[in-house]
Amino acid sequence: MAYYRDLRDHVAALEAHQKLVRIKRPINKDTELYPLVRWQFRGLPEEKRKAFLFENVTDVTEKHYRSSVLLACHAASREVYAISLMCQPAEIADRWARAQLSPLEPEIVRSGPVQEEIHLGPNLLEHGGIEEFPVPIVTPGFDNAPYFSAANFMTKDPDTGARNIGNYRAMVKSRDRLGVCSEPPQHLRVHWERCKARGVPLPAAIVIGASPNIGLTATAKLPYGKDEVAVAGGLSGSAVQLVKCQTIDLEVPATAEIVIEGLIPTDSLEREAPFGEFSGFMGMEKISPYFNVTCICHRHNPIYNAFMGEFPPSEATKLRQLSNEAIYYKFLKHDCNIPGILGVTFLESCAGLSYTIIRMRKSHPSAAWQALNGCAALNPQYGKITIVVDDDIDPEDQDSVNWALTFRMQPERDVKIISGRVPMLDPSGFPPTEQDFAYYSHPGSAILIDATRKWDYPPVSLPRKDFMEKAKKIWEEEGLPTLTPRTPWFGYSLGFWSDQNQAEAELALRGAHYETGEKLARERIKLDANPGPGQ
Amino acid sequence: MAYYRDLRDHVAALEAHQKLVRIKRPINKDTELYPLVRWQFRGLPEEKRKAFLFENVTDVTEKHYRSSVLLACHAASREVYAISLMCQPAEIADRWARAQLSPLEPEIVRSGPVQEEIHLGPNLLEHGGIEEFPVPIVTPGFDNAPYFSAANFMTKDPDTGARNIGNYRAMVKSRDRLGVCSEPPQHLRVHWERCKARGVPLPAAIVIGASPNIGLTATAKLPYGKDEVAVAGGLSGSAVQLVKCQTIDLEVPATAEIVIEGLIPTDSLEREAPFGEFSGFMGMEKISPYFNVTCICHRHNPIYNAFMGEFPPSEATKLRQLSNEAIYYKFLKHDCNIPGILGVTFLESCAGLSYTIIRMRKSHPSAAWQALNGCAALNPQYGKITIVVDDDIDPEDQDSVNWALTFRMQPERDVKIISGRVPMLDPSGFPPTEQDFAYYSHPGSAILIDATRKWDYPPVSLPRKDFMEKAKKIWEEEGLPTLTPRTPWFGYSLGFWSDQNQAEAELALRGAHYETGEKLARERIKLDANPGPGQ
Repeated sequence: MAYYRDLRDHVAALEAHQKLVRIKRPINKDTELYPLVRWQFRGLPEEKRKAFLFENVTDVTEKHYRSSVLLACHAASREVYAISLMCQPAEIADRWARAQLSPLEPEIVRSGPVQEEIHLGPNLLEHGGIEEFPVPIVTPGFDNAPYFSAANFMTKDPDTGARNIGNYRAMVKSRDRLGVCSEPPQHLRVHWERCKARGVPLPAAIVIGASPNIGLTATAKLPYGKDEVAVAGGLSGSAVQLVKCQTIDLEVPATAEIVIEGLIPTDSLEREAPFGEFSGFMGMEKISPYFNVTCICHRHNPIYNAFMGEFPPSEATKLRQLSNEAIYYKFLKHDCNIPGILGVTFLESCAGLSYTIIRMRKSHPSAAWQALNGCAALNPQYGKITIVVDDDIDPEDQDSVNWALTFRMQPERDVKIISGRVPMLDPSGFPPTEQDFAYYSHPGSAILIDATRKWDYPPVSLPRKDFMEKAKKIWEEEGLPTLTPRTPWFGYSLGFWSDQNQAEAELALRGAHYETGEKLARERIKLDANPGPGQ
Repeated sequence: MAYYRDLRDHVAALEAHQKLVRIKRPINKDTELYPLVRWQFRGLPEEKRKAFLFENVTDVTEKHYRSSVLLACHAASREVYAISLMCQPAEIADRWARAQLSPLEPEIVRSGPVQEEIHLGPNLLEHGGIEEFPVPIVTPGFDNAPYFSAANFMTKDPDTGARNIGNYRAMVKSRDRLGVCSEPPQHLRVHWERCKARGVPLPAAIVIGASPNIGLTATAKLPYGKDEVAVAGGLSGSAVQLVKCQTIDLEVPATAEIVIEGLIPTDSLEREAPFGEFSGFMGMEKISPYFNVTCICHRHNPIYNAFMGEFPPSEATKLRQLSNEAIYYKFLKHDCNIPGILGVTFLESCAGLSYTIIRMRKSHPSAAWQALNGCAALNPQYGKITIVVDDDIDPEDQDSVNWALTFRMQPERDVKIISGRVPMLDPSGFPPTEQDFAYYSHPGSAILIDATRKWDYPPVSLPRKDFMEKAKKIWEEEGLPTLTPRTPWFGYSLGFWSDQNQAEAELALRGAHYETGEKLARERIKLDANPGPGQ
């Protein structure tokens, strides 16, 4: 089946999968829209989360917008993310590996629906400029303006021409000027530094509402220099069709809803923020580049697309979580060549980057630390807490991970604290009064934990599988509440269990445990009558 | 309202609170009974867990028992525990503080229903001895015999006469002999060592199915030398009535269902186990004391009471969790004099002893480490992972605790690993081939973590409370799925937020953010045209 041509195909698919909520009543984009969808991230389990389409959007001035607003369509949940990739949830990591290993060059086409309406030159502001679109306030009460949250910035390395797609927030500063939050070593900022060295502005196009492979690629951390439009093609299995921009030398997805073309000056910076961050705290003021709009293109009645970010879990943390899981899995298994790696999990509640769980079947006692050292090598911003667990642990179940932490780990032997990390947007790193360059004076640290078994263990203390299966049948026949079985739900051997142990367990099941009792009486140990020391 | 006179009152109360499941079909005590109740601990959320009463109990020989079996009546959940204490769940810690501070001496009475039927001397085995009662196999497939799990052993210090009640598993070895798993520094074992020094056996009475304050006290770790029957009286607010035993110089609760009197030899030991442990793994063979039965007393048609232990969470871990929470709370707040302590949580999934979370409002930056050092001082077996969090963290919600761990903690600064701990029943401590005395050659370790904010933070990145409340109303009007709000669900200040930040946020809510944009343009920062270093 062919991949979604555009966001509208994608919306239809979400609706067909019952993963879309349509809100038809008037909704204030600044005070009601984000708070409403926020509730599903603060009050529902992941499997119930959906995308939201607001069809009647207004604001404090009671303006009515032509555009509807589509929120959380990429990654409200793992299942929604899988719909974005047109695959099963379990196939996400493999899709990513394929996209990285087999990127597909984009195809340049002559025209596309994204340019159905074009505003430029003296007509740039004819429909209000940026104001034409219902850009919401994301964290009302704290944010200092509406911000674009699903602004996928396309830029090119001025030296190599390699395309980058990156998701950066964009503060609405006027009808034709936006803030751009991008810091080194983010790729847009690298392009910007290279233009600055040449004394020219950086041309950029903001793509909003493309087919979802564009947004998924924009939010993934891929190695610098990859043509990310080609990776997006690899993700969808078909070349992305691009059209040339009107005012700058860039190409953009032909079927996007909205494209804003512009130039990012390199001779000056402006403040932007406060804006809510994925750490769960407000990100405070930053001195950042800004973007002067040169042209606005859009489809007729464009859908305005936004990401749900800020407090974790959110759509943004789900996007980061799932691409990180895929990228770390590929790195550990294929690049570090650790065959026992079964999966990598980044907890969404920790913003999809700070708490990493590697599940593995150790081929050698050293394999756990090889994996931990691999994680430490890949990205100094991620994995502040990194844990290796055995294959019988469910990394999605915190109780299971805590079981490993408490009964398979000795802190003195199995924990290592490393320095030289980047406390990115992490307010524990240094006081907020020391924002600029404090990374250098206050490097962050991380904790690596081997929570695997170091030797054979006795069996898991749960009844044998056949007894649990029989009991489940009785449970259901008695009409007791529906069970959601958690790992583990039956006992199993972990290497330390003798033939005598097994024989005694079998005797007991036959009601013949007195035989064991008699043996134990025969083997009774006589004690010295003298009191021991300390008595 | 008077406290439960006996277990039967307690069962009626559980039923009235809809916390009792009655199973009327025949159930095999060895292969079906524990696996059935195990499912609620592996497949239901805590709030749905209940006590189970099995009214028709059989075994592999198709014997039918007169006794019903009551499982998980003390602490299937926090709510069930509160019913055992006849209080609200939030009052549990206070009830424990009162019991410790105001114990009530027991009252000796002349007779009680526990002695309605007495088997002793030549008639000891007239109803089969221990075999009269349906003692189940707890972990079928691995355990080597049926074990008493709710055997509350009463003993006296032979030097001081102070009574102890302790819960120790008891392996059925014959119709009149049990294994007793009790190791130093457990209090029964201390009494045993003192009798051994005198060259006499230790008299002991096993109490089964008393009013629940007895079981709650038996499973709590109270300081040595306290008369624990008086603490049980303090818990219930009324003196425990005791009757004299038939064959030994001890007194036992007058309304218990079953009492087994006996002597524990001090001149020899026997093996017992394997038996499932709270670590989630089988506890392997131990050389332990054993118990020779001298008399069996019981009520007519006694109810056989058992605890649900082994793999966490279980009833046993809930019992340990809640008494530990109460004891640590009292210790930190009252004995260490740390006024900011708001609560102590022991995760039930970590067996109610290994993962400790202290919630506090710091009165001074040192208060977090004072609390961590306090925990380290109280019990070297507990708190392998101990974390202090701020007052805005929900310790019952692992996502909330992980949020604190990832964005309020820097490992290098805020983590300390300490040695000299006891890896009690913790298979990560040393290989199972080194059971005896390995505590000395392999001391355990623990990790202490200060996950509190070290300075003022920016606000929490969620919409302001009024917007979230309004959105919740819309959510409900739209008929969206029922919400279970999680902490936090709205943004709030944490000290770092200026008047300018607030003023800009208010402007944005009035649609006047262009004013901010103009100010930022005026304050634009001109950059040096020369490229920086490294460009």
